[in-house]
Amino acid sequence: MIKERLASLRELMKDNKIDAYLVPSTDAHQSEYLPALWQRRQWISGFDGSAGDVVVTMNKAGLWTDSRYFLQAEKQLSGTTIDLYKIGVQGAPTIKDFLRNELKGGQYLGIDPRLVSHSEISSLIASLAAKKIGLKFIENNLIDEIWKDRPEMPLEKIMVWPIKYAGEPVESKLNRIREKMNAEDATAHVLTMLDAIAWTFNIRSKDVDFNPVVIAYAIITKSSAKLFVHPAKVNDELKGYLKGVAEIYDYNLFRDHLVNLAKGKEKVWLDGGTVNQWVVNLLEKDCELFYRDSPVTLFKARKNETELAGFKACHERDGIAMVKFLHWLGKAVPAGGVTEITAADRLEKFRAEDKLFQGLSFETISGYKEHGAIVHYSSTPETDVELKPEGIYLIDSGGQYLDGTTDITRTVALGKPTDEQKNRFTRVLKGHIDLSLTSFPGGTTGIQLDTIARKSLWDVGLNYGHGTGHGVGAYLGVHEGPHAISYYRGIGVPLESGMIVSNEPGYYKAGEYGIRIENLVNVVRDDEKSNNDFEFFKFDCPTLCPIDLNLVELSLLDKDEKEYLNGYHARVRKVLSPNLNEEQRLWLDNATCAL
Amino acid sequence: MIKERLASLRELMKDNKIDAYLVPSTDAHQSEYLPALWQRRQWISGFDGSAGDVVVTMNKAGLWTDSRYFLQAEKQLSGTTIDLYKIGVQGAPTIKDFLRNELKGGQYLGIDPRLVSHSEISSLIASLAAKKIGLKFIENNLIDEIWKDRPEMPLEKIMVWPIKYAGEPVESKLNRIREKMNAEDATAHVLTMLDAIAWTFNIRSKDVDFNPVVIAYAIITKSSAKLFVHPAKVNDELKGYLKGVAEIYDYNLFRDHLVNLAKGKEKVWLDGGTVNQWVVNLLEKDCELFYRDSPVTLFKARKNETELAGFKACHERDGIAMVKFLHWLGKAVPAGGVTEITAADRLEKFRAEDKLFQGLSFETISGYKEHGAIVHYSSTPETDVELKPEGIYLIDSGGQYLDGTTDITRTVALGKPTDEQKNRFTRVLKGHIDLSLTSFPGGTTGIQLDTIARKSLWDVGLNYGHGTGHGVGAYLGVHEGPHAISYYRGIGVPLESGMIVSNEPGYYKAGEYGIRIENLVNVVRDDEKSNNDFEFFKFDCPTLCPIDLNLVELSLLDKDEKEYLNGYHARVRKVLSPNLNEEQRLWLDNATCAL
Repeated sequence: MIKERLASLRELMKDNKIDAYLVPSTDAHQSEYLPALWQRRQWISGFDGSAGDVVVTMNKAGLWTDSRYFLQAEKQLSGTTIDLYKIGVQGAPTIKDFLRNELKGGQYLGIDPRLVSHSEISSLIASLAAKKIGLKFIENNLIDEIWKDRPEMPLEKIMVWPIKYAGEPVESKLNRIREKMNAEDATAHVLTMLDAIAWTFNIRSKDVDFNPVVIAYAIITKSSAKLFVHPAKVNDELKGYLKGVAEIYDYNLFRDHLVNLAKGKEKVWLDGGTVNQWVVNLLEKDCELFYRDSPVTLFKARKNETELAGFKACHERDGIAMVKFLHWLGKAVPAGGVTEITAADRLEKFRAEDKLFQGLSFETISGYKEHGAIVHYSSTPETDVELKPEGIYLIDSGGQYLDGTTDITRTVALGKPTDEQKNRFTRVLKGHIDLSLTSFPGGTTGIQLDTIARKSLWDVGLNYGHGTGHGVGAYLGVHEGPHAISYYRGIGVPLESGMIVSNEPGYYKAGEYGIRIENLVNVVRDDEKSNNDFEFFKFDCPTLCPIDLNLVELSLLDKDEKEYLNGYHARVRKVLSPNLNEEQRLWLDNATCAL
Repeated sequence: MIKERLASLRELMKDNKIDAYLVPSTDAHQSEYLPALWQRRQWISGFDGSAGDVVVTMNKAGLWTDSRYFLQAEKQLSGTTIDLYKIGVQGAPTIKDFLRNELKGGQYLGIDPRLVSHSEISSLIASLAAKKIGLKFIENNLIDEIWKDRPEMPLEKIMVWPIKYAGEPVESKLNRIREKMNAEDATAHVLTMLDAIAWTFNIRSKDVDFNPVVIAYAIITKSSAKLFVHPAKVNDELKGYLKGVAEIYDYNLFRDHLVNLAKGKEKVWLDGGTVNQWVVNLLEKDCELFYRDSPVTLFKARKNETELAGFKACHERDGIAMVKFLHWLGKAVPAGGVTEITAADRLEKFRAEDKLFQGLSFETISGYKEHGAIVHYSSTPETDVELKPEGIYLIDSGGQYLDGTTDITRTVALGKPTDEQKNRFTRVLKGHIDLSLTSFPGGTTGIQLDTIARKSLWDVGLNYGHGTGHGVGAYLGVHEGPHAISYYRGIGVPLESGMIVSNEPGYYKAGEYGIRIENLVNVVRDDEKSNNDFEFFKFDCPTLCPIDLNLVELSLLDKDEKEYLNGYHARVRKVLSPNLNEEQRLWLDNATCAL
């Protein structure tokens, strides 16, 4: 089937006089998660991981993906004639290398300009120019032309995110954006990122799994704000809500309005890292363009008081679901029949008891024993195993609630843990606590804090291969920039008041077990430590759920760490107990007893 | 006098049809420290700090410098008609802002292309182009034309740095450079940085204060290596040493050889951040140029076994000088008559007792009481004060020895310290020790470690406004890249085996006192912690000199920190004692007693 699809694509490539065609993983909004109709790379290759780009030439085809997906890609590409290229493996050719090797001077790479950001295109052009390989933008996506039964555009109605959760009216948000535009003399700002648009217009929908975004474009000028969405998604409530503040247009009219911007020779602010090249192509001849991070990115990251209150509230209810789940797990596993998948499903049901629950915020990672050591493990019917009263179980999950987004990881001993497991768990816990306890001066960036969570593992020659924390949206994406606590992401972005970030150090012993402890925290001013010379900040932690004391090696914790753990558990008990039944409450009392 | 110089310069500017002229702080080699004949900015402005650029227009003149020099610049510029512009102060116009405001479209800024790096020029052109202000390169430096009694080129003979200190023959270094060139298909690499040239050709001289570099250019091709220096600096030893390996040419012939590169249409590797625009102008029409950090930068930073042995050896002897000095200080201060300047001079004399001593590695920072709080304080006859048996004294100093470069800071209580001073000193010490004790996985960069040295100050709402550590050369510059332990320098550069870096946290209470504790360390593989999953690295510390125990608040140190301090002091005592007299030895025994 894949072979036939490739053959049809190559026919179209001939018609279009191109020698290679790029099928990126993403859509016109540079999304990580896409609605089904835009999952073109999955369709052409059969590989359905969340990241991976395909390039097809007349006699070769390749998929580029990262280490999370090497095994899965190998399996899914088998028999397709598509070769796997491993990103990050030394000596493995990149897409640019491949194109430079496979194409000759004078040949052309075809690209749908909607699917590549302006910065990517600039770097690609520079790379191919050296070998005089040309680049041809083809507006009609070639996959769409041959994909007969392609799904429809999702047409779920758009919901107005109530002001009691959003905390700031659209008008106020637009004014803040316009202030930034004025400071740059920009007359227009084009938004293409779905979460930025959802934030700006206080809208949510169910167009994409796990991410309550709306498929949309937006153009903001000094005097107007235009939202482009499919007309079928618009109801009277939305029309009323945006009346006098923003105009609603058909998603397909976005192109015409870009052309109008060009005619008006506007000075347009674009976010070069995310805006697609199709937008740039339509504007660049006539407009004065400049590229800088959208002001929305930082506005959205700094949650207001209302968002923070919702963040806190949804974490209390999420904590109740987690406690019910852990209590249930302790009884259900010895009784038998619980698997990675059924456990994850049971947790989702506990979450769904809350009436503000809207769905999961990402696919639950439910990993038993050696599966826990696979950082982005996703249990499938083929890999699913039964949980037994032995070994370690890791569950990383989160919910979307009307008042906020949650993300939590707990690692649980289902039997008696080994000394090594307790040692490793406690070292991860020390890192998690030390980071929680850190106060830092204004201007500090995440990479400066990342080390604090690793130090206790480094002390014994261990480490973990992922960042310590990612930003989180307010009833939006569970991964959100620009900040992070990481050695490779969010470099140069200071952590500011109101930012939400995860605190999730881990340890992974391949083939044996995985450990991760994750709470979400938000940055607040540290009034006690701030002084005339330095303003200090610290973390508040709304995540409420016991940390498995059976895995704690007490002698490894210092006084401050022990005090933190006991204080945290006392708070968990106090806040959650009133909402539990007698049996759950007794379980929680025991799970949170002071050490 | 300055006014007359400015008037003469403006005459020349008219002749050259330019409306502004830039007088940068640096020379053609982008040096921080310059020989006298190239200190043009000092001559035109009267300001003699180590950093500061001047711009002169027909009716205005400005100096841009940073906070280290605000007071000094204000004083030295008084009455000159040159305005001070403070870099880093919010709202203060940058040089680019100034030029955009003062010049009109169609006017020209004149620049000596030797004095600006390619990356600076690129950013300047982009900035001025928006207002259609032009840029005119003027090869004859206008200051040189009006500076009548300009000093001569330094003509001290070039010394061959003996292989017993350098550890690697020039041929081997050239081969390593050529390997990197081959990998990039480069046919030539042009070197303009003086320390890179000194490293490559194993040469040293005394052309510049504190930096034993040689004023030189170099061109390396696949089959040749050309060193351009003033003929009077070359003796037979050097000729013999480089015979068959490199050719020596007159410094003034460099231009002709660049023209030859152009004629040959070579593919030339340039270090864009440091190569001056004059080189680029001569090459860019005919050559294929590409810009990447010179391979020498990383080669030079990773010291070989011989250099590390010299590094260790010179630190033993430097430690002896330091101990003699501290012992002397303790007696001399109560006796009276010791000042910041005489103390610094006394330390230099102790260093000069060593026969490999070649001079200081930077101007000694000798700061008593509130002067210690000025991070880059330099005592002058006007600011010099007598040291009394009270308060805190900070001395940051270093030596150039034939076998290596030292840099050490000690903070000493001359009387009974206050509780606050002991608390602050001990927190700085904790940071210093915690960083010394850190093991880290391969790939870790300095910004990831910088926090470790700050954490104990952050814990009480304090911080210091400089990086924790800078790279150090092997009998070369005391400041050397590309790595650092800093929140703003060396970002992205992993710390690798053989790199030398300082460990110097501090605390500064403006108007009262300053604390800094600095040792140099070198990165070594941590064999004990390395395992199949991760290779680990740690620091060795060759700096040997007691840390003032009178300033230590013992209760603030944890077990590991106390153990480190006692172990360090035992090592200092053991290594240095054999080279001290009875009285000094007794002093050292006491200064290094176990806590």
